Amino acid sequence: MYKMKPCAPVAMPMPDAKLRVLVLNASLKHQPDISNTGELSERVLAEMRALEPDVATEVVRLSDLRLPVGLGFRESDDDEWPDLVPKIKAADIVIFATPIWWGGRSSLMQRVIERMDALDEEYIASGRSALYNKVAGVVITGSEDGALSTLGTIMMVLTFMGFTMPPECAAYWVGEVGQPPAKDREKRLVNGATAHMTMNLARNLLYYAQLLKMHPLVPAMPAHGS
Amino acid sequence: MYKMKPCAPVAMPMPDAKLRVLVLNASLKHQPDISNTGELSERVLAEMRALEPDVATEVVRLSDLRLPVGLGFRESDDDEWPDLVPKIKAADIVIFATPIWWGGRSSLMQRVIERMDALDEEYIASGRSALYNKVAGVVITGSEDGALSTLGTIMMVLTFMGFTMPPECAAYWVGEVGQPPAKDREKRLVNGATAHMTMNLARNLLYYAQLLKMHPLVPAMPAHGS
Amino acid sequence: MYKMKPCAPVAMPMPDAKLRVLVLNASLKHQPDISNTGELSERVLAEMRALEPDVATEVVRLSDLRLPVGLGFRESDDDEWPDLVPKIKAADIVIFATPIWWGGRSSLMQRVIERMDALDEEYIASGRSALYNKVAGVVITGSEDGALSTLGTIMMVLTFMGFTMPPECAAYWVGEVGQPPAKDREKRLVNGATAHMTMNLARNLLYYAQLLKMHPLVPAMPAHGS
Amino acid sequence: MYKMKPCAPVAMPMPDAKLRVLVLNASLKHQPDISNTGELSERVLAEMRALEPDVATEVVRLSDLRLPVGLGFRESDDDEWPDLVPKIKAADIVIFATPIWWGGRSSLMQRVIERMDALDEEYIASGRSALYNKVAGVVITGSEDGALSTLGTIMMVLTFMGFTMPPECAAYWVGEVGQPPAKDREKRLVNGATAHMTMNLARNLLYYAQLLKMHPLVPAMPAHGS
Repeated sequence: MYKMKPCAPVAMPMPDAKLRVLVLNASLKHQPDISNTGELSERVLAEMRALEPDVATEVVRLSDLRLPVGLGFRESDDDEWPDLVPKIKAADIVIFATPIWWGGRSSLMQRVIERMDALDEEYIASGRSALYNKVAGVVITGSEDGALSTLGTIMMVLTFMGFTMPPECAAYWVGEVGQPPAKDREKRLVNGATAHMTMNLARNLLYYAQLLKMHPLVPAMPAHGS
Repeated sequence: MYKMKPCAPVAMPMPDAKLRVLVLNASLKHQPDISNTGELSERVLAEMRALEPDVATEVVRLSDLRLPVGLGFRESDDDEWPDLVPKIKAADIVIFATPIWWGGRSSLMQRVIERMDALDEEYIASGRSALYNKVAGVVITGSEDGALSTLGTIMMVLTFMGFTMPPECAAYWVGEVGQPPAKDREKRLVNGATAHMTMNLARNLLYYAQLLKMHPLVPAMPAHGS
Repeated sequence: MYKMKPCAPVAMPMPDAKLRVLVLNASLKHQPDISNTGELSERVLAEMRALEPDVATEVVRLSDLRLPVGLGFRESDDDEWPDLVPKIKAADIVIFATPIWWGGRSSLMQRVIERMDALDEEYIASGRSALYNKVAGVVITGSEDGALSTLGTIMMVLTFMGFTMPPECAAYWVGEVGQPPAKDREKRLVNGATAHMTMNLARNLLYYAQLLKMHPLVPAMPAHGS
Repeated sequence: MYKMKPCAPVAMPMPDAKLRVLVLNASLKHQPDISNTGELSERVLAEMRALEPDVATEVVRLSDLRLPVGLGFRESDDDEWPDLVPKIKAADIVIFATPIWWGGRSSLMQRVIERMDALDEEYIASGRSALYNKVAGVVITGSEDGALSTLGTIMMVLTFMGFTMPPECAAYWVGEVGQPPAKDREKRLVNGATAHMTMNLARNLLYYAQLLKMHPLVPAMPAHGS
């Protein structure tokens, strides 16, 4: 159970590093509808910019992309996954943001995970993960229940893909069982635990991304047959 | 996400069947401390008695039993598991009641599942599960998050042990993230969704238990080598 | 952990009931590619037909339908979800069949669960679930790991949607960690545990569907405001 | 799904740092019985010592400790939890090692997580987690299925407790469904994927622990009321 924790300032290891942050927002809603998940992600980005004005941020609304089902790198002529991959590779920090539907990540977050399999294949072949030295965070919103479970299932994927996860690598909001969803946003905006998680997440993502800029984990090329 | 559902009366298939209900309460607290999980379980039992005054109910507080770790039928001289097994076997309905700790079932609920492995072994040997024709329900309480995930992980175990699960086989309460646990009980007692789940659970457990009394699934003895 | 269990014959409660079975196959592959999940589902259907020649079966390959993201009943002019709903409503038995991708159900299975939300809304309004008196089964295949977890998360959704789940409500295959996927099919076809699960699933789905035909749970209409 | 990945050598950031590694082995078996989980943990430690001969390692077999249920720091006069806490606090790397029972962590691993709640309370009060700047790894063994799910549920707890998780933070072994458990060990010992995970885990735990020795995340004391 998450309990409210104070967020204290921290001296950054290398305050001048220019960092890129990419948010993959797996909301089921299309733009310009407000996405709870997107809004909470924006708060994380705002905290980051407050700590490091130089940080470059981008949010991708997955529901507005064409990401067909499949495991290839390009699944159709109008597949937009190949355009997304360079953004992921260029990012120092990737935030996986998803609503909860029936206790799990959305079908769009699952789709992204399935499509990332091609990146993973690359890793297997080369021994160098394209995702090494990147830090991952998770943002989750749901009317009720499922954040911690959804978080765990995402973390498990990310660790094997090569991401680093800092302490308090997530910010989420979930409400009491059976309450009217129309009031979710209002409650989320004043929730102190969610605010603390947001600040801790922003701070820790930056800290670890800077640390890995200074000291990247660089595996040597694997020997034949290994 | 659970949404509040009405609970409507149902004509029971065989109203006179005398049924036995056993609650396994895996609260970490010892008696006489109030257990949220225990209290919600008692409400389910009260609903059952309102529908079927004749139902025989028993609640076992697992924290007050000695249930040592291990996979044998009797793990030590003072092991109380062998005394619990006949109660499970005699029950028509077993309610698995657990608090949530860090998104999962309590260590006591997990201990019970580990110890039930011996019953499962019996099933493998004989082809007749000791738990066939029993109906299972689940009761879960947590300050915040984890009910649906905890429920799923328990249902998965129970189906392979041979239990039948009716529609709406669970009643639970979880609160908004980061709220003071001291107010959990107060909120739970007035939560409409939890009240509906409680009524639906009670009604459906009785309905299916009576159905299986009338029409038990009776596998024939397996042939050699099957 | 699943252990091999014998599957014994059972006297069906009402052998002449004509039953409809619908398989929702959430494989990521398109037809005519062989889907492991589809193939295992077909074995379940074959077992059912052996027990009840009269059973009507249909398999829907979700990857070949257009099921756009969203929560409405019809999300676009060419949305094929509205054509699928009557099939679900007409079925006595629905089998949710999914491959495992990174420990969870496929994006297509998740999409179906999201789209079923509209059916759930109907339930909330009327007090009569369109899915009451239907029996659900689950079929899962994965190269390695994740079947039990995927099963639990699906069962949890299905119980709140109103489905009944019999004992041994699933059949699955998963292999040893890190083995070449090219040999998965070959191993699956000779796996004794998967064969037993297949038979038990087929038998129990039929038994419970017939039971509910004879004794449907019929909630009365809810009173005002309940 | 885990796929075999090469493990390449890496230049350590500060090769001379003396590190302490603690393994919490939650096997249900008592010493001197061989624990699969313990044996795989020992391989991780051996890899670590090969990379850094100076590393200090300790394995605690939880089944042989008295760890009563409860949430206090000391639950009984003979409670051994208070003796374990200083070891956790002194470690730079903590490896959470658990067998899988019915798809989840063992009751002993769950017990440890419940008992760590007291450490978490300390964090809430002070704003400095006793577990910041510690790196966590996970070791899991099971006859079949459940490693990834078990991993995710543990990672989720650890991130909120303040641990850092490196890429590939786990090593596990699971077998094909329904195979005789007696051969598990033999298969595990020759499994290439498990061997790669073991090496990657050892290397990455050391790398990140050394990084955090050089650059600890040190939150300032929180202001009043934060």
